[in-house]
Amino acid sequence: MIFKVRLIPVKMNEFYGFANEEDLKEIGIIHGDRLKLVKGSKSITIFPQPSQIVARGEIGIPINIAEELKVKDGEEIKAFPISRPKSVEYIRKKLSGKKLSKDEIYEIIEDIVNNSLSEIELTAFVVSNYLVGMDFDEIEWMTRAMIETGETISFEKGIVVDKHSIGGVPGNKISLIIVPTVASAGLLIPKTASRAITSASGTADTMEVLANVNLSVEEIKEITERVGGVIAWGGATNIAPADDKIIRVEYPLSLDPKPQLLASVMAKKGAVGAKHVVIDIPVGEGAKISDMKRGRELSSDFVELGRRLGLNVTCAITYGGQPIGRAVGPALEAKEALKAMEERKGSSSLLEKSFGIAGILFEMAGIAMNGYEYAKELFMKGKTHEKFLEIVEAQGGEIRRSEEIMVGENTHTFTASFEGAVVAVRNKAIVKIARAAGAPKDKGAGIVIHKKKGEVVKKGDPLFTIYAEKDWKLQNAVETARSDFPIIVSGMILDRYPSFKVM
Amino acid sequence: MIFKVRLIPVKMNEFYGFANEEDLKEIGIIHGDRLKLVKGSKSITIFPQPSQIVARGEIGIPINIAEELKVKDGEEIKAFPISRPKSVEYIRKKLSGKKLSKDEIYEIIEDIVNNSLSEIELTAFVVSNYLVGMDFDEIEWMTRAMIETGETISFEKGIVVDKHSIGGVPGNKISLIIVPTVASAGLLIPKTASRAITSASGTADTMEVLANVNLSVEEIKEITERVGGVIAWGGATNIAPADDKIIRVEYPLSLDPKPQLLASVMAKKGAVGAKHVVIDIPVGEGAKISDMKRGRELSSDFVELGRRLGLNVTCAITYGGQPIGRAVGPALEAKEALKAMEERKGSSSLLEKSFGIAGILFEMAGIAMNGYEYAKELFMKGKTHEKFLEIVEAQGGEIRRSEEIMVGENTHTFTASFEGAVVAVRNKAIVKIARAAGAPKDKGAGIVIHKKKGEVVKKGDPLFTIYAEKDWKLQNAVETARSDFPIIVSGMILDRYPSFKVM
Repeated sequence: MIFKVRLIPVKMNEFYGFANEEDLKEIGIIHGDRLKLVKGSKSITIFPQPSQIVARGEIGIPINIAEELKVKDGEEIKAFPISRPKSVEYIRKKLSGKKLSKDEIYEIIEDIVNNSLSEIELTAFVVSNYLVGMDFDEIEWMTRAMIETGETISFEKGIVVDKHSIGGVPGNKISLIIVPTVASAGLLIPKTASRAITSASGTADTMEVLANVNLSVEEIKEITERVGGVIAWGGATNIAPADDKIIRVEYPLSLDPKPQLLASVMAKKGAVGAKHVVIDIPVGEGAKISDMKRGRELSSDFVELGRRLGLNVTCAITYGGQPIGRAVGPALEAKEALKAMEERKGSSSLLEKSFGIAGILFEMAGIAMNGYEYAKELFMKGKTHEKFLEIVEAQGGEIRRSEEIMVGENTHTFTASFEGAVVAVRNKAIVKIARAAGAPKDKGAGIVIHKKKGEVVKKGDPLFTIYAEKDWKLQNAVETARSDFPIIVSGMILDRYPSFKVM
Repeated sequence: MIFKVRLIPVKMNEFYGFANEEDLKEIGIIHGDRLKLVKGSKSITIFPQPSQIVARGEIGIPINIAEELKVKDGEEIKAFPISRPKSVEYIRKKLSGKKLSKDEIYEIIEDIVNNSLSEIELTAFVVSNYLVGMDFDEIEWMTRAMIETGETISFEKGIVVDKHSIGGVPGNKISLIIVPTVASAGLLIPKTASRAITSASGTADTMEVLANVNLSVEEIKEITERVGGVIAWGGATNIAPADDKIIRVEYPLSLDPKPQLLASVMAKKGAVGAKHVVIDIPVGEGAKISDMKRGRELSSDFVELGRRLGLNVTCAITYGGQPIGRAVGPALEAKEALKAMEERKGSSSLLEKSFGIAGILFEMAGIAMNGYEYAKELFMKGKTHEKFLEIVEAQGGEIRRSEEIMVGENTHTFTASFEGAVVAVRNKAIVKIARAAGAPKDKGAGIVIHKKKGEVVKKGDPLFTIYAEKDWKLQNAVETARSDFPIIVSGMILDRYPSFKVM
């Protein structure tokens, strides 16, 4: 059938189009069916939506699809129904509890990357991986497929190492210290990091305060070869692109099926050619993994998947029951990390963890017997700081001193209303408050924790300070903190019936 | 935040809107999050899509949403992020393998009806019902919730009966004979039927050839009270509206989880106040249910669900291994059914099945000891025919005689190329050909089967005829029939390697 193009002034992630209901019936298209649009040598597959207001013979297409097809408003275009891709059958096979073959998994991942699956189909895949699961063969194939459907980097010489945290603990700015420490010892560490999805700041958001993180794979390679390390946003590259698309359906359901978690992390590490990898698994209340048993199981899965892919993996189960360091939010975290490097001192949860993980990498790469001590030595000698400034400069950054980092000017400090010991710093409340204050979008927004678990407070002592760039966001954050208090002092009345009041 | 409305000239089933990416980051909205739009006393919740081409401060909304909110292009509207409805948590609970409570299931169904769930969330619900399942309490609650979230009918007097086929067998026009037969005996049968989704003709499509099927619940009630029966399209009413929305995600995955199948059928029967119900379960190759064991299990589930809802249910397991009667497609089926009533004779698979099911209803309602004989007697005496014409008239129909029914003028007949016996009439190929010929959209399109299973054919005997309204669709259907032959004669070479050739 020939349609006249009508441009719809929007862009859509899913490939939708709009056609007259009667036209769709005429060509036998039902909701969820695909229509292939052909213009010259270009073609694209869309999911047409019935719309009474598009005239018969017209097809409404979003601007991004029109651009891809190089068609203009009013031009003619050919369209015909096409059947579901085979990968939908493979998803149904997984739904029926069966093991998928290598080819089947590759085809699913390819179709995800090409936007050939609808959100409904992609959701069915994610949910089936959650409920039916995958065995190690399938997880290995999925990881390889995720690597091969995207860009990869390979280094001609040098020992390439990497680290990854599975997330869930706020303030985890350790990469800003680990990457330069490791690079200063001559190892290569082409670290790609994420931006925050549900957290207050991803490593990429934090690094962006100081430098450009939107690097291409060519730039990542060049900088890593020149200065030894990089901290780039993975989303600016086309490394393991299936992952971002899968996250789009995982997030609304708060689901992260184990096969996807394993494949997603290892695909990113495999794609940059890492040989030795440390996976940081924070365990604790309010973290992604709440108990040691599940932490150990996941560790063993990562190591096995690494073995299959030819990656030497060590997992570090770390304490994730409260934030790392004291600052949460992009600029506050960058400031905390840079200040620690400048002064050769800082929060022990930040420094000890950074030395520990850098140390494991040193031991794996065989360049130190006691990796922790070696990492600490490099840090205390100023090697970490020096290398970090080199990396910032290589990534086009201009800030040299931690004092130059601007943070939100609107602040509010909560104080203790009586004496006691801090018994909990609640990850989820911390993140909620920092996000209400504007993080990660407003770089200067966030929260600084003055008292952490075990510390003793006197009446009137500051407990935490909220920073915001905009006053209305500060007010939102203060409200949030009042109803979901992040720091619990022993003896504090958490709730009161019938009337609720925290402080 | 205040937005300026920009009208997007489309209608969308899912409640989407379009906003500038930076604005969404500003208010902390991620893909899958909800934005509540408020204008005066009206509000609606949308899923905003990031779009670089909508200016900051603007929100693009589809026409249907603008109509509901009564806003015009350029007007101002308030918007603020709202959290996921609780029902998403309940869907996650089901995903984790737990039993849902009555209140939780009601909330999910209400949110489905109100369009408060995204396709991702709805898909997760359907897939979890498929993989985790539901126990009978949950299925009962879901059925009741589906009834109560829609319109219902209740009759002050008379015995209300109903029938339903779970589908999957082509040419199943039995309702056109059962409804008038049952009504002619003084029972009330307010039959709501579906249109085809993947079949060549739903009962509503077939009846529409003769009469108006877009009846409101008031009209269904009035006509049933006046003439005893009706054959209406359920989709024109608001009976069990959750079902249609659930089907929208089931269809692309070809999934029909048992809890949903049971609840969907029984909700429709419960909503019209039926006391005695027969469920037709066609079993056979190419039907929805392929073996007797599964047919019996499903029967027992329907009976148990009926008992819990206070409905007296009998299941009829029928032969579904080939089409019912000889005609497939709206007009051809209507013609076959009306002709059989006029002549008091017809295909035995059509008449015997109709008498059998009407007969069970007579026995359940206690108005005949041998229901089959009683149904046959009514049919042979012309009572069925007479009542059918009354129903057609009550529904505004004008056609009185089967010869007046127009069928497609473009036809092609396939003949036997040698002597033999018909060993298979393949349901799926029959449907595929009829749909390629234009059914159900083109009422006159379809297929007539001249030889069914067990019949002997001589070389040159007609096997089947394709009917189409449009020549190009006839050509498509002939092509389809050549590559997916629907009637198998013993000794026929079905495939040939290396070169593939059927006839």
